Amino acid sequence: MKSDDDDLAPVRKVGVTRLSSAGVARVADAAATEEPLDIRLHGRSFAVVMRTPGQDRALAAGFLLSERIIRSAEDVGAIEHCRHPDQRRAHHVVDVFLVGAAAARVPEMLEARRQFVANSSCGVCGRATIDELRCDIAALPVEWTVDVPFLRALPSRLRATQAAFEETGGLHGAAVFSRAGRLLSSAEDVGRHNAVDKCIGQLLIDRHERGAALVTEAGGDGGADAIAVSGRVAFEIVQKAWLAGISVIVAVSAPTTLAVDLAHEAGLTLIGFARGDNLNIYTHPERIAGV
Amino acid sequence: MKSDDDDLAPVRKVGVTRLSSAGVARVADAAATEEPLDIRLHGRSFAVVMRTPGQDRALAAGFLLSERIIRSAEDVGAIEHCRHPDQRRAHHVVDVFLVGAAAARVPEMLEARRQFVANSSCGVCGRATIDELRCDIAALPVEWTVDVPFLRALPSRLRATQAAFEETGGLHGAAVFSRAGRLLSSAEDVGRHNAVDKCIGQLLIDRHERGAALVTEAGGDGGADAIAVSGRVAFEIVQKAWLAGISVIVAVSAPTTLAVDLAHEAGLTLIGFARGDNLNIYTHPERIAGV
Repeated sequence: MKSDDDDLAPVRKVGVTRLSSAGVARVADAAATEEPLDIRLHGRSFAVVMRTPGQDRALAAGFLLSERIIRSAEDVGAIEHCRHPDQRRAHHVVDVFLVGAAAARVPEMLEARRQFVANSSCGVCGRATIDELRCDIAALPVEWTVDVPFLRALPSRLRATQAAFEETGGLHGAAVFSRAGRLLSSAEDVGRHNAVDKCIGQLLIDRHERGAALVTEAGGDGGADAIAVSGRVAFEIVQKAWLAGISVIVAVSAPTTLAVDLAHEAGLTLIGFARGDNLNIYTHPERIAGV
Repeated sequence: MKSDDDDLAPVRKVGVTRLSSAGVARVADAAATEEPLDIRLHGRSFAVVMRTPGQDRALAAGFLLSERIIRSAEDVGAIEHCRHPDQRRAHHVVDVFLVGAAAARVPEMLEARRQFVANSSCGVCGRATIDELRCDIAALPVEWTVDVPFLRALPSRLRATQAAFEETGGLHGAAVFSRAGRLLSSAEDVGRHNAVDKCIGQLLIDRHERGAALVTEAGGDGGADAIAVSGRVAFEIVQKAWLAGISVIVAVSAPTTLAVDLAHEAGLTLIGFARGDNLNIYTHPERIAGV
């Protein structure tokens, strides 16, 4: 379904099993493309940013302005896509060359970032990241099923935990549930990733302090089996869930293409647009009873 | 209005000048608190994360799990708030101590992060960051005014640029305008910060290639004067606008406390909840004619 060119478009078609009051339908949905962009300074990697392809040179310029590497257009010698003969690779790399005093600072800037990029770099393309994760941790097995009413109830159960959102309209929420529907932890934060880290970290602290289980135990009900999130789902949310052994993500809003791809590889059931009776099941519907 | 304890609560009251169809009113609004948390490993800074206070220990645990520093509760010796006698400082620092094989890897992990933290650290408290920025770049002067119809039109003008959002429901948008209302650049991205970087970077590239002005010129109309954003406004968005010399931010949703504080210092007019006739003016209403 996916061609190599698809990840250069800002939007990609993804297959969805849609459950609604009208029943079950297999449809094509448009997802926002998420792919890493490698921003290089004088030929060496400075930062890898997850982004939607398009205006990549502008993104590199704005990013370097925000990071205070450049102060004005006068600092810029050239900003261009990499000229690698592999077009697909070249489109995910932007080369920046500075001039004047800014150019003189480049070696020092690269040194300051070197270890960080080496540590957090997700490779030049999302495929590399997914391959790496897949080699490192096993896909989540389909050992149990959830039913549709359980899934449909999660967004309102999440909302019930979000005291501060009601007050401010400005916070993301996340909540972790066992397969039997027990609320295990919940959190709110201005950062969507933080809310997920807090939920999952709370379970780890509980286990540390009281011996409660973090990892799913087959057949049991002590495990972190499903996570509900208030917003959209990008790559990192799926990665966090996978690392925590959580098999089901229910989101109120849209997933990105890379989130869908990673969930597919992870054996993770990814559900978006969970609103009212609607559930868009992007991956692994076999974990849902009756679908 | 703000006490030292306020930045430990998840929500803080902020003063707002609210323009609606009912007229102008001075009201108090609840904003989500955003403050940096310093996550330390064995007493040394590992990462500084902008977060909403609360469940800080859980956030540290989940963050370290996602970063694959810890794999399970068994790796954790202790996770606790710093015991610094200054309570306010102590509440923005979590100390993590690992045990076993994970503990043995700590020096190497810290070395790998050292330069990055030194580079991007925003200090232990948000106040330090604001002070640092304030020392480094001048506040934006109030040299011109915008009128209310101009501001009210920005969200729909932004939306008109968002082709991919309409298709996916999953992309953030941003657009930069001159004070006379000319659309200078626009962008979409899965990342809210990327959309802003793309818009601002596009202007820098335009200037680099065609000599167009990035920085506001007093009395002219070639400048980047206002930015409209589709979502919420956190600290970093205000920082990016300030660095680009943009004096007005119009957001469809809520700002965080630190965004409001920084906009105040920056001399930047920050407007949230721009929906229909409603405009919540959080800072510097003197830049708006007739308010």
